[in-house]
Amino acid sequence: MNITRILYGVGVAMATLLAGCATQATRPLGPLVIESQGSFAVGGVVKHTPGTYDNNKPTSAGQSFHGDHLYASYQVPQHAKALPIVMLHGAFQSARSWETTSDGREGFQTLFLRRGFPVYLVDQPRRGRAGNSTVAASTEPAPNDQLFFDQFRIGKWPNYFDNVQFDRRPETLNQFLRSVTPNTGPYDAGVIADAISALFDKVGPAILFTHSQAGGPGWLTAMKSPNVKAIVAFEPGSGFIFPQGELPAVMPSAAGTLAPEAVSLADFLKLTRVPIVIYYGDNFPVEPTSERGQDNWRVRLAMARRWVAAVNRHGGDARLVHLPEVGVRGNTHFLMSDLNNVQIADLVSAFLIEKKLD
Amino acid sequence: MNITRILYGVGVAMATLLAGCATQATRPLGPLVIESQGSFAVGGVVKHTPGTYDNNKPTSAGQSFHGDHLYASYQVPQHAKALPIVMLHGAFQSARSWETTSDGREGFQTLFLRRGFPVYLVDQPRRGRAGNSTVAASTEPAPNDQLFFDQFRIGKWPNYFDNVQFDRRPETLNQFLRSVTPNTGPYDAGVIADAISALFDKVGPAILFTHSQAGGPGWLTAMKSPNVKAIVAFEPGSGFIFPQGELPAVMPSAAGTLAPEAVSLADFLKLTRVPIVIYYGDNFPVEPTSERGQDNWRVRLAMARRWVAAVNRHGGDARLVHLPEVGVRGNTHFLMSDLNNVQIADLVSAFLIEKKLD
Repeated sequence: MNITRILYGVGVAMATLLAGCATQATRPLGPLVIESQGSFAVGGVVKHTPGTYDNNKPTSAGQSFHGDHLYASYQVPQHAKALPIVMLHGAFQSARSWETTSDGREGFQTLFLRRGFPVYLVDQPRRGRAGNSTVAASTEPAPNDQLFFDQFRIGKWPNYFDNVQFDRRPETLNQFLRSVTPNTGPYDAGVIADAISALFDKVGPAILFTHSQAGGPGWLTAMKSPNVKAIVAFEPGSGFIFPQGELPAVMPSAAGTLAPEAVSLADFLKLTRVPIVIYYGDNFPVEPTSERGQDNWRVRLAMARRWVAAVNRHGGDARLVHLPEVGVRGNTHFLMSDLNNVQIADLVSAFLIEKKLD
Repeated sequence: MNITRILYGVGVAMATLLAGCATQATRPLGPLVIESQGSFAVGGVVKHTPGTYDNNKPTSAGQSFHGDHLYASYQVPQHAKALPIVMLHGAFQSARSWETTSDGREGFQTLFLRRGFPVYLVDQPRRGRAGNSTVAASTEPAPNDQLFFDQFRIGKWPNYFDNVQFDRRPETLNQFLRSVTPNTGPYDAGVIADAISALFDKVGPAILFTHSQAGGPGWLTAMKSPNVKAIVAFEPGSGFIFPQGELPAVMPSAAGTLAPEAVSLADFLKLTRVPIVIYYGDNFPVEPTSERGQDNWRVRLAMARRWVAAVNRHGGDARLVHLPEVGVRGNTHFLMSDLNNVQIADLVSAFLIEKKLD
C-alpha cells in the first residue's frame, strides 16, 4: 500500500464519518412520497418467421417474436434530484438484488429514493421479467447453495465469517438463496449493453450502479451512451476491458483463470469521460490460497486495480475502494444489502456529492 | 337472458355509474404516499443432492437448491384499508400485468393503491423473478405475437376490433408483446397454489385478484387458505373445478376442447365460503365459429357460467359479469390494462363495497 492510497483511505474514512453524521441527522423517516411509478420494456429485437400467418390454424409461419429487451420499473420521488440512478443486477439475480435485504431492511432502491433520486431497477435481457430470449436455453435446477455461500463470501460453508455483515437467522439465508433466478437465454454482455443503452436513451442523463457480473456490461454501456454520467460498480467480477495492446497477463486462481478483454483504444477512451468508483468488500486473501470462494475475488480485485490504473493513465477518473482499507469490515459480495448497507450508501452519497452528481 | 340477469345487469350498470361519479369526485390525484414497500420470496421447497460438499472442488454433491417459491413485491399506502389485495398474473406473464398499461397509464397496482389498498404483486413459481424451478425446462423463442393478438382479443390479426379498448399506436403493441415472459419450469397449478397459500399465511386475510390461467390456482388457493376473503377473477381461462360426479360435458371449440376438472365435494364446498366475482370482456361469439381466437373464449365463458351455477347451487356467492351485458364494450382479455381500466376498477370497487371488503 503506497502513501497515496493511505491518504485517500483516510479521506474516504473521514467522508464516511461525515456522511454518517449528516444522514443520521437529516435522513427522512416515515412515508415515501412518490411522484410517479411504473414499468416498461426497452430495447430488444423482433424476429420474424417466414411464411403466412393463418389466424385459425396458427403455426410459427408468418409469426414474430419480441425478445432480448430489458424490463425496468421506476419510482420518482417528490422533489427529485436531477440525475436518476439505474441499478443493474449481477449473475443469478434480478432487480430483486436492490430491493428489500434478505434480512428484511430497506435496500438501495428505497434508500436512494429516500435520498431524492429517481430509481430505475432493471431485469436484464434473458432474466426475470425480461425472460423472452431470441436464443433458446435450458433451465436446470442446479444445486449451488453451498457454492454461493462460499463464492459470495458469506463464509466457508457451513460457517459464517466471524465479522460477516450478514444476518445469521436461517430465514435470512433462505431469502438470499431464493433471490437466485436463472438465465432464460445465453448470457451476452453485448445484448445487455444494447438494452441498457436504449434505457439511457429513454431516461436521459443518469448514474449507473452495477453489481458483480454487470460490471462488464456497465463499461460497455458507458462507451455506447453519453447519457451515462457516472458508474458506481459494486464488486465487478468480469468483463474487464483494456485497450488493444495493453492487456495485463491472465490471472490464475483456485476458482479458475481471469482473463482481461480487449477493445479499441478509441472505445476505451470513452471510459475516461465520467467518474467511476468501484467498491470491494472484505475477506479477500492477500496471497493465493486454495480456498476457492475467496481466491476467486483475490484476482478480480487485482484485475480491477490494473483496470483503474489503465483508465487513469489515459486521463480518466476511476477510483477503487477496498472497504477494509478504509476501515469498513465484513462485507460480503452483496454490499448493497449487507447489515451495514446504510454505511455503504453513505460512502456512495459522499462520492456523488464530491462529483457534483447528487 | 333471463329477467334476473337483466335486473342484475341494470344494477351493475347503475353501480358503475355511481362508482364512476364517486371516484371522479374523490379519486386522489398527485403523489402516492407509501407507508412501506419491499419484496420477498415465500413458499417453495429445498432439494438436497446426496454426498459431501467440497468447498474447494464443488460439484452438485452435498449441495442444495431452493426453488418453486414465488416472488412478491408490496406497497402499503398511508392510512391503508384493512384487507390487502394480492394480484396473480396469467400465462406468459409476470406481475408486469398489473403495473403500467401497455399505453403508459397506471395499471391496477397503482389504481388500487390510490384507493387505499395494500397491494401485493406476485411472480408465480417458475416465472419471472421466481425462476428457480425444481423441474428442468427449456425456453424456446416461440413466435406467438400474431396468435396472442388474436387469442387475447385485440382483434383478428392484423386488424383491430372496431370497438377495442386497446390503444393503436405501434409502441403500445410493442410494450404488450414485450410483457410476455416464459415458464422456467413446467406449469403446475398445485405448486402455484401452495406458494400463494403460503403468501396468504404471511399476509393474513386478503383479497385475491387472478387473471386468465391464474383462475385455476386461485380457486385451489381459496380451498387451501381461510385467509382468502374474496376472489376477483378476470377472464379465468382454465382450471374450472367441479365436485366429483357433477362435471359438465367437455366443450369443443375451434381452439381445442375445454374440460372441467374434478375435486371432492368437501373441497368444492370451501369455495362457497367467500364472495367471488368473474369478469369477461367483449367480442365473444354467441354461436360456435371457426374464428379460433374468439371461439376459444366462447367455451370458457360457457364453462364459467356452469361453474358459477355450481358454486351457488351449493350455497356459495359467485357472480359472473359479462361486460357487454352491462354496457361495457370493447374489452380485450387484459381488462385491467385496457383503455377503460378505471371503469373496470370502479366495477370492482363497487363489488368490494357491496361485500363490505373495501
